[in-house]
Amino acid sequence: MTKHRPLLLVTNDDGHEAKGLAALAEVASQFGEVIVITPDGPRSGMAHAITMNVPLRVKLYKTENGIHYYRTNGTPVDCIKLGQKVILKNRKIDLVVSGINHGSNSSVSLIYSGTMAAAIEASFENIPAIGFSLLDYSNHADFTAAKVYAEKMIRKVLEEGLPDHTCLNVNVPNIPLEKINGIKITRQTKGYWNEDLVEHIDSFGRPYYWLSGELVNTDHGVDSCEWALTNHYVSVQPVQFDMTAHKHLNTLKKWEE
Amino acid sequence: MTKHRPLLLVTNDDGHEAKGLAALAEVASQFGEVIVITPDGPRSGMAHAITMNVPLRVKLYKTENGIHYYRTNGTPVDCIKLGQKVILKNRKIDLVVSGINHGSNSSVSLIYSGTMAAAIEASFENIPAIGFSLLDYSNHADFTAAKVYAEKMIRKVLEEGLPDHTCLNVNVPNIPLEKINGIKITRQTKGYWNEDLVEHIDSFGRPYYWLSGELVNTDHGVDSCEWALTNHYVSVQPVQFDMTAHKHLNTLKKWEE
Repeated sequence: MTKHRPLLLVTNDDGHEAKGLAALAEVASQFGEVIVITPDGPRSGMAHAITMNVPLRVKLYKTENGIHYYRTNGTPVDCIKLGQKVILKNRKIDLVVSGINHGSNSSVSLIYSGTMAAAIEASFENIPAIGFSLLDYSNHADFTAAKVYAEKMIRKVLEEGLPDHTCLNVNVPNIPLEKINGIKITRQTKGYWNEDLVEHIDSFGRPYYWLSGELVNTDHGVDSCEWALTNHYVSVQPVQFDMTAHKHLNTLKKWEE
Repeated sequence: MTKHRPLLLVTNDDGHEAKGLAALAEVASQFGEVIVITPDGPRSGMAHAITMNVPLRVKLYKTENGIHYYRTNGTPVDCIKLGQKVILKNRKIDLVVSGINHGSNSSVSLIYSGTMAAAIEASFENIPAIGFSLLDYSNHADFTAAKVYAEKMIRKVLEEGLPDHTCLNVNVPNIPLEKINGIKITRQTKGYWNEDLVEHIDSFGRPYYWLSGELVNTDHGVDSCEWALTNHYVSVQPVQFDMTAHKHLNTLKKWEE
């Protein structure tokens, strides 16, 4: 454990009223000074979006148990930038925690996730960061088990640190605590979302579409996050942000001119 | 070259009125059947965001030189999903091209980029895809050189294909064609955006913030995209979407329980 009292920034993508946020703020407050900065409403599926075309607002809306809670019209990634620059004025942040997300961020969902984008944004500047997700989309999800594992992971990261420019993607299966088999370190499951864009007709006779779909898992490796979750493990996945397809660099060299 | 007439889907993140889109549609139309589906306004910095909280609309707004142009209230990633499911009704797409973006998508800008997210989304389903960017943010940027390299790259990819689940991030320096030294195959430059969230005061005395900033390049490797661009090469970067920090999986194994 660092000797000074750690400073933790808490954010999410489900917005300031989410039950998962309250759960995570409660866990984080056991470890040091906590600042909460979140979007002012749901921002699921916002990925690494930043706000460039409208001005950003940020407002202190409550102080509870010594924790200041801010909300913004921005995205989860904006929360990290606003937290660092506007609220904390470049004070050193010891840990960013994001979530607890209502719903899974396994496989390629990681790339659509605002929860994980906030953690990845922190890792750009080498701030240790963890995104937490519970495999239950319900507003009333039971975060009991997720809180236990959030506490374990926050403790480990504050005590032992993380590799440079690496954050964690932690997914917790939606089962009672006593049914969880433990923690698996995993890699991102290969897969994609098979979308169904259902056509509806509005009151004026015009079509519109809602996105829905399901994850198609093309990968059943026992080291994958989906395997861990299906087999009742908490998936802990180290995440980095170099998207280069390194293994194909040499093959493509022939295209140089 | 594939023997049938290829089907190309063109999108971007600068919206349907962008000069870079017209440039790319013109180049693409030399290679086969082209469908254009773009956001109905600027969506820079939207990254891999998808639209979940409002209904998606999509409208055919013009047909020009045999090309149907559609626009949507959605994001660049939504354009891929709408294109596949709603407009093309699961017809096989031979190539997705995105851009030509007004501004660079080198280094970590790749991760904020809507242009590149559209290409990455296509690669999830193994559709070959290329994102093109010109290092000039101006609405009136000169796309002459970028079009020449777009044509070269589209030809190469249609003829030779791309490795599975890999797309290309092509950045073109903002210099005249004759000053360009050629093509370099590159990896993602290490770096981060150092933001300046400038405070302004609105007419009601309330503060608001605009995001601005600059890329901090912490990596001067001669194989990096920033090096190539600074040295007047077109940067061609293979991109994959497994964000696992594979090299740290073993180190973290000790956290399993």
